[in-house]
Amino acid sequence: MSEIREDIITGDHVVISSERGKRPHDFNHEETTNKDDYCPFCYGNEDDTPPEITATSSNPNRKENEAGWDIRVIPNKFAALDIDADLKRQNGFYNKMTGVGAAEVLIESPDHEGSLGTHGLEHTIDIMRVLKERHDDLAQDERLKYVQIFKNHGGTAGASLEHPHWQIMSTPLIPTAIRGELDGAEEYYSENGNCVFCDILTEETEKGSRIIEDTEEFTAFAPYASRYPFEMWIMPKEHQHSLGQISEEQLKDLVKVLQKMIRKLEVGFDNPPYNIVLHTAPFLDGVEKKYHWHIEILPRLSINAGFELGTGNFINPTSPELAAETVEDITIE
Amino acid sequence: MSEIREDIITGDHVVISSERGKRPHDFNHEETTNKDDYCPFCYGNEDDTPPEITATSSNPNRKENEAGWDIRVIPNKFAALDIDADLKRQNGFYNKMTGVGAAEVLIESPDHEGSLGTHGLEHTIDIMRVLKERHDDLAQDERLKYVQIFKNHGGTAGASLEHPHWQIMSTPLIPTAIRGELDGAEEYYSENGNCVFCDILTEETEKGSRIIEDTEEFTAFAPYASRYPFEMWIMPKEHQHSLGQISEEQLKDLVKVLQKMIRKLEVGFDNPPYNIVLHTAPFLDGVEKKYHWHIEILPRLSINAGFELGTGNFINPTSPELAAETVEDITIE
Repeated sequence: MSEIREDIITGDHVVISSERGKRPHDFNHEETTNKDDYCPFCYGNEDDTPPEITATSSNPNRKENEAGWDIRVIPNKFAALDIDADLKRQNGFYNKMTGVGAAEVLIESPDHEGSLGTHGLEHTIDIMRVLKERHDDLAQDERLKYVQIFKNHGGTAGASLEHPHWQIMSTPLIPTAIRGELDGAEEYYSENGNCVFCDILTEETEKGSRIIEDTEEFTAFAPYASRYPFEMWIMPKEHQHSLGQISEEQLKDLVKVLQKMIRKLEVGFDNPPYNIVLHTAPFLDGVEKKYHWHIEILPRLSINAGFELGTGNFINPTSPELAAETVEDITIE
Repeated sequence: MSEIREDIITGDHVVISSERGKRPHDFNHEETTNKDDYCPFCYGNEDDTPPEITATSSNPNRKENEAGWDIRVIPNKFAALDIDADLKRQNGFYNKMTGVGAAEVLIESPDHEGSLGTHGLEHTIDIMRVLKERHDDLAQDERLKYVQIFKNHGGTAGASLEHPHWQIMSTPLIPTAIRGELDGAEEYYSENGNCVFCDILTEETEKGSRIIEDTEEFTAFAPYASRYPFEMWIMPKEHQHSLGQISEEQLKDLVKVLQKMIRKLEVGFDNPPYNIVLHTAPFLDGVEKKYHWHIEILPRLSINAGFELGTGNFINPTSPELAAETVEDITIE
């Protein structure tokens, strides 16, 4: 029997359909990443990308835009938004504005064959720290309202290049999904006097059946109204509205949990396509007590089809309880 | 220069990014539909589907669930929703309800190799008439609030079977996307005293640059805030909130436009994956003047990646003006 579950944050509904899980071709996935010999993200091709925004290197003598970096952040060569544009609005029957915003790429390491699940711990902490620094830097730009940090892994998750990377995009508007979470969180706060995300953590910890990993600083769990099969969220236990608030110690704990979840996906599902999206507070006053930043890991094992596009709701063939149990049981070493 | 356009109905924003159109791998598409020899939708395999709900046949002696049908509607064997379930709600920290609803499949014709763009006119009118009849029938069920009619074509658009078919799903809730359109339409109506969809038709007809096809009863156009490259909407000129209001004459005109748009896609893009979603009014009083049913054709030429999943907003690499011009220029005979 299917269930229709309500997302306590957004009010959106998800069909948790155990029947669908039985389809013979569910969870087959193909990797369609471009396997071209040439990679603009590898050492030696630094000139083929726009000049770097920042980079880390263990070599203090390394020059900008040359090889020898450990992590490199560059503007997206095919940027959908332009940080140098003037913010102009044009209102009429329809409204529009210029496409102002950041579109950056963080190259995770020089290792083309590397993966987020297998990088060294210290290196991965550096990656997350640089992402946080880019967030904090873009938060200073008064034209911008939000920073979306995300990762596409695998062709069917939208990665046009195989070399492991993240993207950082900043928009002059609060995106629809963030608006939805924020509206729900504000409503919950005014009714209950609490952060809905904090209350979710309390509820999930009590129940336990959707918890995948629980450390001192972070909880990884399969959300009650998961939209994607094996969707996993990682949330700080301490109430923090913004990624900008994470401490060095928490960063380390986050990376341990994140790498473990990704490694479990890589091993348990034979390197599936996935997206990671980091939801953090938009740059607005008054959201500090209500919003709570978190990471969503979204495996792309099923296809959004006409039902999802038409209704804006999801059919998920795997219950989050089954997902949590399955992921917990994947042995990675 | 990219533009951020506001959808006048929902208020959602879309990045229209001409830069992105330059990506070398944009608009390559692969068909991943299962090419198994066995097809449960072909003649002779009627016993392998659940018993039919309705069928048309030119043979008056044809028996139910045997070959000889022209169009056949069956319950989805892998149904995500169950029309026979009892509607039960369970509220607590999280809320849920039983998965009540219809999940039907309309098999377009016995011809496995056929396509919506190439069926005969009269046959395609029959298809649309049967879809309308299913809508009207499900609208009688007081537990249900909405009927989502949609079509998945091609593996990357979510079609798990190649044999041309539509799906009809009915839900006990108003879906998120319909709620969003309805809220926007109600706001527009209270501010302007008009149906926003009717005003869009007036504006588009005046401007002309996004119109693809204009007949006596229907307009096909690329919407101003198109989310998908080559997204096309087909809208009745007469104000009708519900598909249930379409006349026999209008049905014929609709099919002419729909087939032309699909045939242009098939020819111009080498049989690409696409979804069709039909948005019609939910079963609510008071929406009659405000909502306006329409068909959305959504080619699946680009991939929704981390930006789209994270923000709920879209980056569209093809402006609707370019899309309209391109589709208009595709010669289909």
